[in-house]
Parts: sequence; structure tokens; C-alpha cells
Amino acid sequence: MDSVTALYRCVGAFVSALERLGLRHVCLCPGSRSTPLALAFARHGGFRVWVHLDERSAAFFALGLAKASRQAVALLCTSGTAAANFVPAVVEADAAHVALLVCTADRPPELHHVGANQTVEQHHLYDRHVRLAIDMPVPDGEATTRRYFQHMAARALSACRAAPNGPVHLNFPFREPLVPKGPPPLAGGEAKRALPLTSALLLPAPRMPNQEQVTAVADLIRGARRGLIVCGGQDDPAFPAAVSQLATKMRFPVLADPLSGVRCGFHHTDLILDSYDAILRDTAFAARVAPDVVLRFGAAPTSKPLLQFLERQASCPQVLVTDGDWTDPTLVAAALLAADPAACCQALTAVLGGHIPPKTATAYARRWQRADAAARAALAAGSGELNEPFEGRVFLELARLLPEGALLFAGNSMPVRDLDSFFPGGTRDVHFLANRGASGIDGVISTALGAAAARQRPAVLVIGDLSFYHDMNGLLAARQYGLGLTIVLVNNDGGGIFSFLPQADQPDYFEQLFGTPHGLDFAPAAALYGAQYRRPTSWDEFGASVQAGLASGGLHIVEVRTDRRVNVAQHRALWQRVAEALR
Amino acid sequence: MDSVTALYRCVGAFVSALERLGLRHVCLCPGSRSTPLALAFARHGGFRVWVHLDERSAAFFALGLAKASRQAVALLCTSGTAAANFVPAVVEADAAHVALLVCTADRPPELHHVGANQTVEQHHLYDRHVRLAIDMPVPDGEATTRRYFQHMAARALSACRAAPNGPVHLNFPFREPLVPKGPPPLAGGEAKRALPLTSALLLPAPRMPNQEQVTAVADLIRGARRGLIVCGGQDDPAFPAAVSQLATKMRFPVLADPLSGVRCGFHHTDLILDSYDAILRDTAFAARVAPDVVLRFGAAPTSKPLLQFLERQASCPQVLVTDGDWTDPTLVAAALLAADPAACCQALTAVLGGHIPPKTATAYARRWQRADAAARAALAAGSGELNEPFEGRVFLELARLLPEGALLFAGNSMPVRDLDSFFPGGTRDVHFLANRGASGIDGVISTALGAAAARQRPAVLVIGDLSFYHDMNGLLAARQYGLGLTIVLVNNDGGGIFSFLPQADQPDYFEQLFGTPHGLDFAPAAALYGAQYRRPTSWDEFGASVQAGLASGGLHIVEVRTDRRVNVAQHRALWQRVAEALR
Repeated sequence: MDSVTALYRCVGAFVSALERLGLRHVCLCPGSRSTPLALAFARHGGFRVWVHLDERSAAFFALGLAKASRQAVALLCTSGTAAANFVPAVVEADAAHVALLVCTADRPPELHHVGANQTVEQHHLYDRHVRLAIDMPVPDGEATTRRYFQHMAARALSACRAAPNGPVHLNFPFREPLVPKGPPPLAGGEAKRALPLTSALLLPAPRMPNQEQVTAVADLIRGARRGLIVCGGQDDPAFPAAVSQLATKMRFPVLADPLSGVRCGFHHTDLILDSYDAILRDTAFAARVAPDVVLRFGAAPTSKPLLQFLERQASCPQVLVTDGDWTDPTLVAAALLAADPAACCQALTAVLGGHIPPKTATAYARRWQRADAAARAALAAGSGELNEPFEGRVFLELARLLPEGALLFAGNSMPVRDLDSFFPGGTRDVHFLANRGASGIDGVISTALGAAAARQRPAVLVIGDLSFYHDMNGLLAARQYGLGLTIVLVNNDGGGIFSFLPQADQPDYFEQLFGTPHGLDFAPAAALYGAQYRRPTSWDEFGASVQAGLASGGLHIVEVRTDRRVNVAQHRALWQRVAEALR
Repeated sequence: MDSVTALYRCVGAFVSALERLGLRHVCLCPGSRSTPLALAFARHGGFRVWVHLDERSAAFFALGLAKASRQAVALLCTSGTAAANFVPAVVEADAAHVALLVCTADRPPELHHVGANQTVEQHHLYDRHVRLAIDMPVPDGEATTRRYFQHMAARALSACRAAPNGPVHLNFPFREPLVPKGPPPLAGGEAKRALPLTSALLLPAPRMPNQEQVTAVADLIRGARRGLIVCGGQDDPAFPAAVSQLATKMRFPVLADPLSGVRCGFHHTDLILDSYDAILRDTAFAARVAPDVVLRFGAAPTSKPLLQFLERQASCPQVLVTDGDWTDPTLVAAALLAADPAACCQALTAVLGGHIPPKTATAYARRWQRADAAARAALAAGSGELNEPFEGRVFLELARLLPEGALLFAGNSMPVRDLDSFFPGGTRDVHFLANRGASGIDGVISTALGAAAARQRPAVLVIGDLSFYHDMNGLLAARQYGLGLTIVLVNNDGGGIFSFLPQADQPDYFEQLFGTPHGLDFAPAAALYGAQYRRPTSWDEFGASVQAGLASGGLHIVEVRTDRRVNVAQHRALWQRVAEALR
């Protein structure tokens, strides 16, 4: 067998195994050294191949695809700094538990350490941010090598899909010639035979809580008079209904971060609350609703007032249920139950069978419900009365505008916080996503586009101007693949969050180091990427613009111009108004 | 001392030490956790502070500043994926030997591994791509801690400036509060006292060749009848004159990569040749100019025909002189002399004092000179006769247009190769730069802008459309800081280099995976960043556009539209014409 045939047999075996194990999407960036894998993926026919020109955006697009589909997605680039551009998304995938199979092409060993072009050390490029890093052998004609390629497809996908999910790195040294004469050879016959590993092995069975654990937690919450459930970000679609049932049984109020999937949807009950971020800023009121037991699920909540509230309840037993990470920056959790959260809720609900919550529990829940209703009304009324455009109102409007099944992706820094503060709960099924692993403002457009591509449903991204600027390159994918996304660009010409922070009290340096106005007019960016661009001047126009975007498909940018200083004042006035409503 | 005062004393000591050790530029990106260092740099007054919104572009801008100034430059960002966005430029700085002092802010230890927001493992983020990685202590009021901060400034800068130069990573965990009430405290008195380390220690003395080494090499080249010098990329300004003198003494032709600094400048002699890339494609002619000894300096040459020519001279003694890296991917060098290249040339010239080169050496040089003149004439005439715009001609035109002292930055992939093939040598002092460490197409605009900012002289960047797209964000710095750069954007709507490679013979997949047309009209990108945009339709107009850009300062984009397939044919026709001229 000549060397190029041997090469294509190996990559063919790898790619065929991935397809049979269920991988469907591959995002790749053009390059020469990566040619064998690129041709193998394209020729196979079983993959959707997405080609991106900027590796950073490519990796975030893959992240978005993997996040929204909850499936592993492959990523491929050539050697050198191309692979380095994947690092930001790999770091996010690690922290956010997203299954990314990162394949990098490399020069063969004999071109390392001799000054060869475009040759850098790639072995440990992703360091501790990948679950597994494998240096593949140089492909050759040996049957063992082909089997190794086939097996490593399964090994790598398994590691991606372990609990919690995460990124895995395979580094492929390829020796020239890289391109066959004529069409690339298909994988050999052995690639078509069943793998020794079955695809069932790839999906880790959920960790079930044992009887003893369930009994201990049930005993703890059975006697609760002021029980509370807090749901942070998580992505298991079975969880919202499970936790709602448990809450209903126990009459526990549920403080539901939008990213938990619990705030909105068919499972919605009157116990699911959405205005805790505003409510808990009133520390006097917060003290009056101190819980006697807390069940916590998912990531640490987005809301800082909520996190600080939990931190103040150090003497109250808090049980953290998580199937992956340790998510208690407050350091007050009394117990961590490492098991599948939905299964835990179901087991608890079953064990608590005929339990009738004490009257105090019902009274406690009512107090929260009344506060929540008062706060929500105050926020809505207050937002409506503001003369200047208010960033928080974007989410109140979107709650009205988004159709059933829509995706709402929130950018980091302010949008995800405003989403948490202002988006009302309800039975409409809105799917919320954000990059909250490392919470960077990078790659957000690409992640949202990847998620939109996976879901094929109406999708809106709310993003600040710095984050929009950071990943404008990501917009090319929308143009190339005709993807539908309506971007609400909240443009306050700089870093809006710093006006809320102590940095705002450094007037000599504030604008230079933190405010960082750029003065960009983004209309040309929309023109560059063929986006429809609108800058509405009223909320009616805003609604019409978003609806037009959602109705017509394709890429739309709806820009809302705001003022950073006014924005802080507006937020503070609303928190004040909520505090008054709570009295 | 309260904790915020202690914090500012530590970072103040660090920053003051950097300033006294000669560091002058800092590129920083807005963030909260990095506030203490950002304020300390800004308040000190001894630094030029450059603020960038995209960390990837920031890092490449710093790389360009450091490259062009041959000084260390500091880089600062906040925690999380911000630091991950530095990786591509750090990888390039490592491979290209550029002194980058990378400072990342981090959360303190007690926020790690507990699910805190924006907290990722940053300790080994740059892996083997930094010369040194130090985890700084959390600042406190101890005098030892302040001294440690002060000492680590010297330690880190020393590591940056070792031979070869390279990037260094300092990771700073900062604990809240991060912002002082009132103006940030200045460094304590001890920061003003002289450092135990003097600044002289920071600049490594050049490694001088010893007498024995010089004699051995002198003996080898003294008897040469067909001696040849090959200069690859290097940045020592003393080297071009030193190697020219040696060449003149020995009558050795010099094949001078533009990135060696040898091709153009006041030191220019008739032995410095520029058309070897075209000449050596004619393997029959190449065989007739086989050398009997080769002296090689700097990085591996850009020209693949030259590299292959050297590879074929395995039986001829080749001496590689390098003060840093092993730069022989051909694996044929007989000896590597690890010493300062300029000093070696000077020592050899001195030792060879009264040596008179044999007549055969003079005849060999003449043969090369005649071939070079013939090839250059054929390239110029051939380029002039092409009807459609030809990418190589950009460099012939620029050779005419660039003023004395200008910077010419070449993008990777095709521009740097066309620069090598087409830019004629001469006495005009043109400074050539490119990112040839890892040879990525990323970050090129930012690197060129950083270099332009360091040099403050007329500057031109020639870049392909994929590379331009990749780092469009970098253009913001030109607008923010009023930097002067004329960008010649060679737009062939995709990856031009692949048309030269075997990938071109895969018609079913070529455009999708390799050609990758994007169809972007870059005029809106120019509008977005306030650049003057011109698309000349003749070479006269091209010349006028470039001259207008250089004359008026600021950011200019001169777009040359070409066709990828035509471009290959044009290049091949010119190589053919050179081969005919050599007969």
C-alpha cells in the first residue's frame, strides 16, 4: 500500500467510526496539513461540514452547535497558530461542560525541533482544559494503526461525553504527500465492521442517588418550614419538570435562573419565581425570607444578590445536587450530592409520596410569591415610565415577542444579568443559552450562530457592543450558510458593566481603562456581512424590527443605543422602586 | 496597612521596576480583575499605554511593537478566556523570538475549584510556549512580598531578553477590593531605590565565537571555489553590514531573504542577490551552480526552491551560524556554530585579513550575478507584459514607491513568498517584517500596526484577503491611535496558495475546503474603521494610491483584485520565462 493510501485508510477509519458513533457535525478551517481529515470528512457524506475562515470563531460555532444539540461536535484545523486560536473556545467548553472533539493536524516528528515552517509544539496546547489529549501515530499501512485510529474515535468521543461533558484533543501528525492522485480513497473494509465498542457505551448512564442518600435529603426537607430551591444554569431537558414536581409537592419556592431551563416552559408553576435578583437587593426584606433549608441545583447562579443571599445563610443546611462540578463559590453548602439532578428530584418526589407540607411552608411560599409579583409589577411599570431607552426593557419586550420554542442567547457582562433580572417566567417554552463557563465576552456571536444552526428555530441574541465587536468575524457564517439570527445589539459605546463597579469612582482613568468608548458605527459591519440593520427609535419600532427579523429569517441586527451612565441610574431607580413595592 | 494599599504597593513596586529596567510600552485590555495593574501602569506616567478591546489583536499589536523596537513589551488582561485569546501571539512570539511580558490577572486561590465565575486554570495556559511562567503570590503588606514583585519584574524581563528572546508569563492572583478609594496609591519608597539587579544584566552579552571555532570555519571557506552565503530571517541590525563585508572579502554570492535585512540597505553590494527563488526553480541551472561550501545564517529561508536546493547539497559542507535556534529543516548542515552571527562574520573577515579569493570563486560569483540580473530582468519584463493584475507586481511597484526608511510588512501565505520572489535588492533602506515564527495568517494587521507604531516611519502592509479578514478587529487600533499604515489588500477571494498545491487537483472539494471564497466586499470594513479605501484599476493608479496613503498618514486600504487561477498561471509563466532567460 502506498503511503497516501495508508494515510487515507487511517483517517477514513477514524471518520467512519465517528459517524457510526453518532457524530454529525464537523467545523473545519482551511489548511494544507489538515487535508487528509478534511477530505475524509467531506467525502464520507455522513457529516454536515461547516467551513470557517477564522479558527477562533469556528471553535465557538462548534461550541454553540454542541451546546444546543447536546451532542459532540468535531473541530479541525491545520498546524501552527491555527490550533492556538481554538484555545478560548476550548477553555469555555471545559468550564461549561461541552463535548468538543478538537482535531489538530501537525507536522510529523521529523519536522519538529529543526526550524521547519509553521511547526510549533501542539501536544499540550490545551493543557488542563481538555479531558484527554492524545498524540496520534503517523498513519502507516499497518492494520494495527488503522485499528488504533478507529478505536481512538470511540475513546475520544467517550471522554467528550463523560460526566461532565468536555473537550478532548487529538493531535494528528501527517507526513507528505497529503493529497491523493484522484479522489481520496475511502476507508478500508474493516472500518465498516462493527466497532468493539458500542455506541451505548459512549453515553454515560446517569449517576443515580442511592436509597440512603435520598432518605437523608428527604428527612432534611420533610420538616422544612421555610424550604427554598435555587436552580442555576444546567442543560438537562428532563430537569425542569422534575424539579417543578418536587417544588409543588413541598411548596418550596423556586428561584430559577433563566439558564436553568426552569424559569419558562410547560412545566411552569406559580412557585417558579423570576424577580429574586431585584428582591434580594433589599437586604432587609431578604432577612425576612431567610430559609431553613435550601436545595441547590446547577451552576452558581448568575445573580450576585442571590449568591450573596445564599452566602449569608451559612447556618441553614444547603444541599448542592450536581452531576459534575463543585459549584459552591459561597463555601456554605452543607452537603454535596453527586448524582443526576433530575433523577434526584424524581426520587425525592417519590419518597415524599403522601407528605403534606406544613402550613408554615405554604405561608413562606406565599410571602415569596407576593414579593415576586410586586417586584415584577414594579419592574414592568418602572421600565415603562423611563423616557430614555433602557437596556433591561429589551428583555421585557422580548418576553412578549418571542414565539414558542425560540432560542434566546444572552451575551456576557450585562445582557445575561439583565436577562436574569428582567425576563419574566411563564409557560411559553423559551430556550435560554449563554457562555457561562468562563463567562468571556469573546466568541458570543459564533456560539449563538452555532446554537441557532443546531436548533433551526427562531433565534435571538442580545449582546453588548464590546462583545459584538470582539466576534464580528463570526457573522460571516450567517452569510455563508444562510443562518437565521436576530441580533439585538445593545450599544452603549464601551464597557457598560464598569459603571456599576467601584472602577466608576476613578474618574481620571475611567474612560481610558474601563469605559473604553470606541465610537464605532456598526451599520457598515452589517453591510459587510449582508445583515439587515435597523436602529429603532421607539419600543414599538423595536418590536416590529425583532418580529420582522424573526419572520423573514437570515441575519438581522437591531441596534439599541443607550448611555452607560444613564443605564446605571435607571437600574438603581428600579431597584429602589422594587424595594418600595416590597414594603 | 489596609489590603488595598498593600495591593497597590506590590503592583506599584512591580511596575516601577519595569520602568527603571527600560520597559516603555504596555498593551492592555479592559477588565475588572486586572484593575490594580492597569491603574498602576496608567498612573505611573513612564509608559505608553495602549488599550485594545480584542485580546487577540492586543497581543499581536504588542508583538509588532516588540518586534520592530527589539524591546520587551508588556501585555495585560483580566482573568478567564481573555488570557486564552493571547495564545496565538504567544505561540508566534515563542517561535519568532520576541520579548513579550504577558501579565494575566487571576482570581485568588480561594475562588478556584469552587465554581466561581470567570475562573479558569491559568497557571500553564501558555504551556511550553513561554520561557518562564511564574505564579505570583497574592499581594499583602509584607515587605518581602513587595520585594518579590520588584524582583520578579527583573527576573521576567531577563527571561524575555535571554538569547533567543521570547515570551514570559506572570499570573497575578488579586483579591478584592481591587479599587482604592481615591487615587491609586503610588509605589512605596523602596520601589524607588536602585534594584539589586542592574539593567545591564538584562541584555545578554552576545555569544562570541572562540578562536578555534573561527579558525575552523575560516579554514573551510578559505579554500572554497564555489562558496555561497544564505541569509534567512534575522533581526540584528549589525548583521547585514557584517555579512556584506565577509562576502566582499571572499567573493561569495549572498542569497538574501528580505527578512534577513540583507537584501536592501546602505551595505548593499553587487554580491547580494534577490532572484534565487526564480532561478533555483530551474533545477538544471541549479545543478550548474552547486556550491562547494555554504555559510547559512538566520531562520530557514522563505523560498522553498532555495530550501530544496540546500537539501540537495548534502555532500557539500554547510555551516549554520545561529545564536538561538536550530534552523535546519533540511537536516544537511555539517556544523552548527552557536554564536552571534554578526560577530562571527566580523571575526571571519578579520582572520581572513589578506586572503585573496581564487579566480574560480570570482567566476562562480559572476555566474550567479549574471543569472540574477537575467532573472530579474525577465521577471520585470514579464510582469510588465501581463494584462491582468498580477500579485507579484505589487512588490515590483512597491520597490519603486517606498521611501527611504520605510517599513514593508508582508502577510503570510502568498505575500511573503511574493516579496521574496519579486522585491529587488538595492541600497534603499527598506525594513522588512513578517510573522515567520509559526507563519500564521492570524494577527497580521495588528502586528503590522504595532510595528508601525514603534517605528513612526512610513509603513506598508501587503496582505491577502483571508488574513485581512482574520484580523479586521486589529484595524480599530489605527483609528483609536491615529496610526499610519497603508494596507495593500491583495484580494483573490479565498486561499490563493492552495491553487499552487496538490489540493488544486481535487476539483470536487477544492472550492469548499481550500479555495473557500467568501465574496466579501471590504469597502464597508474600511468605512467601519475610518480607513481611506481605494481600488485602483491600473498600476499608475496603484502607485498614486500608495503614495497618497504614505503622504497623508492614517489608515489606507488599497485593494488589488486578482483571480486565483490566473495568478498561478502568471507565476508559472514567469518562472518559465526566467528559465528561458537562464539558457
